[in-house]
Amino acid sequence: MSAPTRTPRRASRAAGSRALAPIVIERVRPEVDGGRFPAKRVVGESCVVSADIFKDGHDQLAARVRYRGPGEGEWSYVAMPYDPDADRWAGALSLDRIGEWRFTIEAWTDVFGTWRSGLEKKVAAGQDISVELLEGAAILERTATGCKDRAARASLTTAAQALRDENVPAAERARIALDATLHALVTGHPSRGDLTEYARQLLITVDRERAAFAAWYEMFPRSQSGDPKRHGTFADAERQLPRIAQLGFDVVYLPPIHPIGKTFRKGKNNTLEPLRDDVGSPWAIGGEEGGHTAVHPQLGTLADFEHFVKRANELGLDVALDYALQTSPDHPWVREHPDWFRIRPDGTIQYAENPPKKYQDIYPLNFWTEDREALWNACLEIFRFWMARGVRTFRVDNPHTKPFAFWEWVIADIRKTDPDVVFLSEAFTRPKRLLYLAKLGFTQSYTYFTWKNTTWEIRDWMREFSAPDVLEYYRGNLFANTPDILHEYLQRGGRPAFRIRLILAATLSPLYGIYSGFELGENVPVRAGSEEYLHSEKYELRPRDFTKAGNLDADLRRINRIRRENPALQRADNLTFHTSENDQVLFYRKSMPDRSNDLLIIVNLDPTRAHDSMVHVPLDALGLPANATYPVTDLLTGSQFTWRGARNYVRLDPVIEPAHILRVDRGGAA
Amino acid sequence: MSAPTRTPRRASRAAGSRALAPIVIERVRPEVDGGRFPAKRVVGESCVVSADIFKDGHDQLAARVRYRGPGEGEWSYVAMPYDPDADRWAGALSLDRIGEWRFTIEAWTDVFGTWRSGLEKKVAAGQDISVELLEGAAILERTATGCKDRAARASLTTAAQALRDENVPAAERARIALDATLHALVTGHPSRGDLTEYARQLLITVDRERAAFAAWYEMFPRSQSGDPKRHGTFADAERQLPRIAQLGFDVVYLPPIHPIGKTFRKGKNNTLEPLRDDVGSPWAIGGEEGGHTAVHPQLGTLADFEHFVKRANELGLDVALDYALQTSPDHPWVREHPDWFRIRPDGTIQYAENPPKKYQDIYPLNFWTEDREALWNACLEIFRFWMARGVRTFRVDNPHTKPFAFWEWVIADIRKTDPDVVFLSEAFTRPKRLLYLAKLGFTQSYTYFTWKNTTWEIRDWMREFSAPDVLEYYRGNLFANTPDILHEYLQRGGRPAFRIRLILAATLSPLYGIYSGFELGENVPVRAGSEEYLHSEKYELRPRDFTKAGNLDADLRRINRIRRENPALQRADNLTFHTSENDQVLFYRKSMPDRSNDLLIIVNLDPTRAHDSMVHVPLDALGLPANATYPVTDLLTGSQFTWRGARNYVRLDPVIEPAHILRVDRGGAA
Repeated sequence: MSAPTRTPRRASRAAGSRALAPIVIERVRPEVDGGRFPAKRVVGESCVVSADIFKDGHDQLAARVRYRGPGEGEWSYVAMPYDPDADRWAGALSLDRIGEWRFTIEAWTDVFGTWRSGLEKKVAAGQDISVELLEGAAILERTATGCKDRAARASLTTAAQALRDENVPAAERARIALDATLHALVTGHPSRGDLTEYARQLLITVDRERAAFAAWYEMFPRSQSGDPKRHGTFADAERQLPRIAQLGFDVVYLPPIHPIGKTFRKGKNNTLEPLRDDVGSPWAIGGEEGGHTAVHPQLGTLADFEHFVKRANELGLDVALDYALQTSPDHPWVREHPDWFRIRPDGTIQYAENPPKKYQDIYPLNFWTEDREALWNACLEIFRFWMARGVRTFRVDNPHTKPFAFWEWVIADIRKTDPDVVFLSEAFTRPKRLLYLAKLGFTQSYTYFTWKNTTWEIRDWMREFSAPDVLEYYRGNLFANTPDILHEYLQRGGRPAFRIRLILAATLSPLYGIYSGFELGENVPVRAGSEEYLHSEKYELRPRDFTKAGNLDADLRRINRIRRENPALQRADNLTFHTSENDQVLFYRKSMPDRSNDLLIIVNLDPTRAHDSMVHVPLDALGLPANATYPVTDLLTGSQFTWRGARNYVRLDPVIEPAHILRVDRGGAA
Repeated sequence: MSAPTRTPRRASRAAGSRALAPIVIERVRPEVDGGRFPAKRVVGESCVVSADIFKDGHDQLAARVRYRGPGEGEWSYVAMPYDPDADRWAGALSLDRIGEWRFTIEAWTDVFGTWRSGLEKKVAAGQDISVELLEGAAILERTATGCKDRAARASLTTAAQALRDENVPAAERARIALDATLHALVTGHPSRGDLTEYARQLLITVDRERAAFAAWYEMFPRSQSGDPKRHGTFADAERQLPRIAQLGFDVVYLPPIHPIGKTFRKGKNNTLEPLRDDVGSPWAIGGEEGGHTAVHPQLGTLADFEHFVKRANELGLDVALDYALQTSPDHPWVREHPDWFRIRPDGTIQYAENPPKKYQDIYPLNFWTEDREALWNACLEIFRFWMARGVRTFRVDNPHTKPFAFWEWVIADIRKTDPDVVFLSEAFTRPKRLLYLAKLGFTQSYTYFTWKNTTWEIRDWMREFSAPDVLEYYRGNLFANTPDILHEYLQRGGRPAFRIRLILAATLSPLYGIYSGFELGENVPVRAGSEEYLHSEKYELRPRDFTKAGNLDADLRRINRIRRENPALQRADNLTFHTSENDQVLFYRKSMPDRSNDLLIIVNLDPTRAHDSMVHVPLDALGLPANATYPVTDLLTGSQFTWRGARNYVRLDPVIEPAHILRVDRGGAA
């Protein structure tokens, strides 16, 4: 029943915002899970830090962001002005380097500003201000005491003396007190008597641009010989690079390139009885030639691989490697470190299974083995080995089946020295685990895009995964197909279906990808009802004639060019869905916040027939008057239309063009 | 670049969920600001604790709530079953006592359940299970080791031996392994090898029922003599209590009852020149007769007050006292503790001001004075003084102009010994500060209700303040008028306006109130454009004839009875707005989650004329088929109607009945 002994001195800054500090700092953005995880941003961005800041009573407050870029020893500061409409404080950091940024917020009472604004009103009302002038003098003197700048200190002291000087008429002293220069001087050297620091320091992971905006292309090097009889090599794959670059891709992703196990090797079409020359699944990693740091001999040498990477980089392409933490029974680790696996009571090593299914060609690792320090370090060394060979992007296989703690540790360790490395998480699991992996440090994530094909599926799913809180840490990469997923929509919809899915993937998200063969419309499943390809490239060579008539090269070149030319397609936080009166026609908008680039995207989702619809253009959001007439240009075809008002007519025949990407040409609006 | 030395043993429970623990526990509810503040509940409620709980891989998990009621030394546990549809875990606490409850969550891998479900599938597939049986035996043996129950330990050991016994046929061993009794036994004594505890312990403030469901009546005792010439007394006020109880109110709230200052006393209608017999504002607390713990002599004695409280309680009424931390210049503290105020450079005490306005009759306290420990304790003692006289409810004047730290400390201190005490915050300030005071411990809060009079104003505002996150800690008390606020809507709308506002206040929220005179339709402002009453009771006696024709007694009795008879009106978390085709007609629903009480409330907001509308009944939410026919009873009039389908017609004449409160009579639906 006694008052708290810790009642703080007003000047104390020790308590932070959670104890008895007078100023509250709340709802800080960006902040992920109370600061448990970093937010993500891209280099070159301006990052707005905002917060609710308030205290009791009527005093004016001031606030600033305290921040430190990667490698900086000193704190920098940026002011956070107050927005009375939003009752919110905000300041912008200019993120000019990749790496880990750190910030917090400081707030204090603007004693001089509070006093000055009261004085102003009293002077205007003709009230006596003699006591107020003495109070002002005291504030200036306190400010001078805490001021390190000698000239400023002198000016403050002089002003304080003038305010106290009863020989100077009150009106003249009021003029001095309210002088704008004095105001600026005090604002520049504020007394932060009750400075309150936000209770946490928050982190921002700043990535390079391609971490957030890139088109991916997945390719098996072994299929690139052009000859169904001959195992492809890195040199063969290298010859595909100019084609891929010309199609407008940014990243070439290779499935595992390591020796492949022979024990329990899978045959064609995932059968259990392989033929002698069956090549096996690249994800059954490890053979007598080596494990995760070896190259499959039929692909060439490590030097060949390095040459491949060098050539890709020359063409402006990043190379992404698969990172799959599992082994075949023939992996060197099985002999050298059997204790890194789970040993069963009969002395055998536990293979992968999903009862009653058995995957005897795959051994999972036991990450909680007694010898885990060595195992985890070995897994880290795999990354570093390939990083040293020029790989700066990794596509991580099934991360949700390995400990979260491992990912958090290994990604942080790498980013400490190499903040340009990108990690793509293949987490086809429940949303909460998918998102948690993004929080733990994965740069990008696979998505449920392949399974979202109707209007409501796309809208609901994109809205959930584009919520502002989610976008703080999650970046979805929309693959239109993968070696594992050939959706029924593509199986049945033919070429129009492929074109529709391409446009959706490439415009719904700044990150998207296709797996080789998509551009040829490959769509035969291993059997009805399956999402597996017939003659899946996972189990056999699959040479292709990319020049075949009817390929989607023109579509790919066109959409990738449009993406590069339109900044609205290069960010994820600017997608909104709008009304289309026909449910088969999806209507969404990608807009720059400053309205410099507004795209209205309308896609017929039915690959089998033409549809028309009335779409409702959000004129308010576009800053157009209710009955505006405005020209729009279809970036797919170059056609120009004049649209009027909110409700406009579209007709889309998927055999001709399944979509409009209409750029609003603001200059011409009337 | 070395692996973390802190890689945890699987069995370690030290790390909590934030370090390297294998199990993630996230998005826990109820949790306010990451556990910084308690959530609020009412005694007798069942509180569902829920969370996202997951780890890597495919193991099955188990979880429970660990909790402790007020005064309990031991932890109790309640299981949290998994809901696969929501991917969420939840268990319910039965809150059977008021006070502070504490809980956290524990989760662990269900090793036996995981093994058992794999075994089941293998047996069904006819696979060899000899190694699996050995693994199961090992699990049972580990479970037995950790089991304190001797009989259970014996059963577990016996089962393990049977599983290992190669003389027993595999089919028989499988039967033993999959036996339901064994499953129940292991589930009842689980091995929690990797038990992970949620990183925080969370608090729940459990209040008595009236903290969340009550009708308030505000009354100035000094006006209750019945004679405009004679200052009313507690005895006079006591004679009003039966009337107030019969109208159905639960709480009688009295403005300050303390001696009133004479220096700079305000005259009638807030004038600066009082007449000799002007009574002054009760909020100018303190005179030569005493301060916050004294009684104004003209009201009677402390014994008279205690008698008033006793009589109120006999009638089932709580008495709420005003708690206003400010003084008149004549308050004893001004003489005894001038340092508890702010002394200006000329030696005078700072009076309240909002430049250029001056409130020279009011001295604010300086809560950050050097002597603050004594001041804060004195403020605490005011509460305890009146609590000892039977007051368990306080209406706190302008809490947002006193330090947040003070409120958090003083409320926590009182609730430690007296968890039944209710604090109503009069925080007419920006929403963020209003809500912050609720987080700090205030039981209820004043609201912006008086200023929300149109359909969209009411919907937007109620939605913001009924968001699930907000309702965790905030309870709005909807006063229809106060001595400070006579809204233009009441000034212009006459008797129909008062009836409309009464029904809205009493049905939009389980907590509402009126200030004396409302039932007589008093609505004359001091001048056009002002929200102040003419002849405001704040500055003069205001005796009333409550029996006057046209009073709202019947309306009050009726609505308070309806509130008591319908549980859906007794909680705040069940309000939804629905479509009405006429904007002057507001349509909302209050429903019990189990559908035991569904009310459709339709209010004509235009006091000047009748309106009709089509309202859209949410049949889905009511569990009614699309073309259902269902009887509804208007609880205001007793009339019965048969409604059909979603769209139904209403017509409301505010002179007759401005609203329907339709109870859906489910038994009769077809």
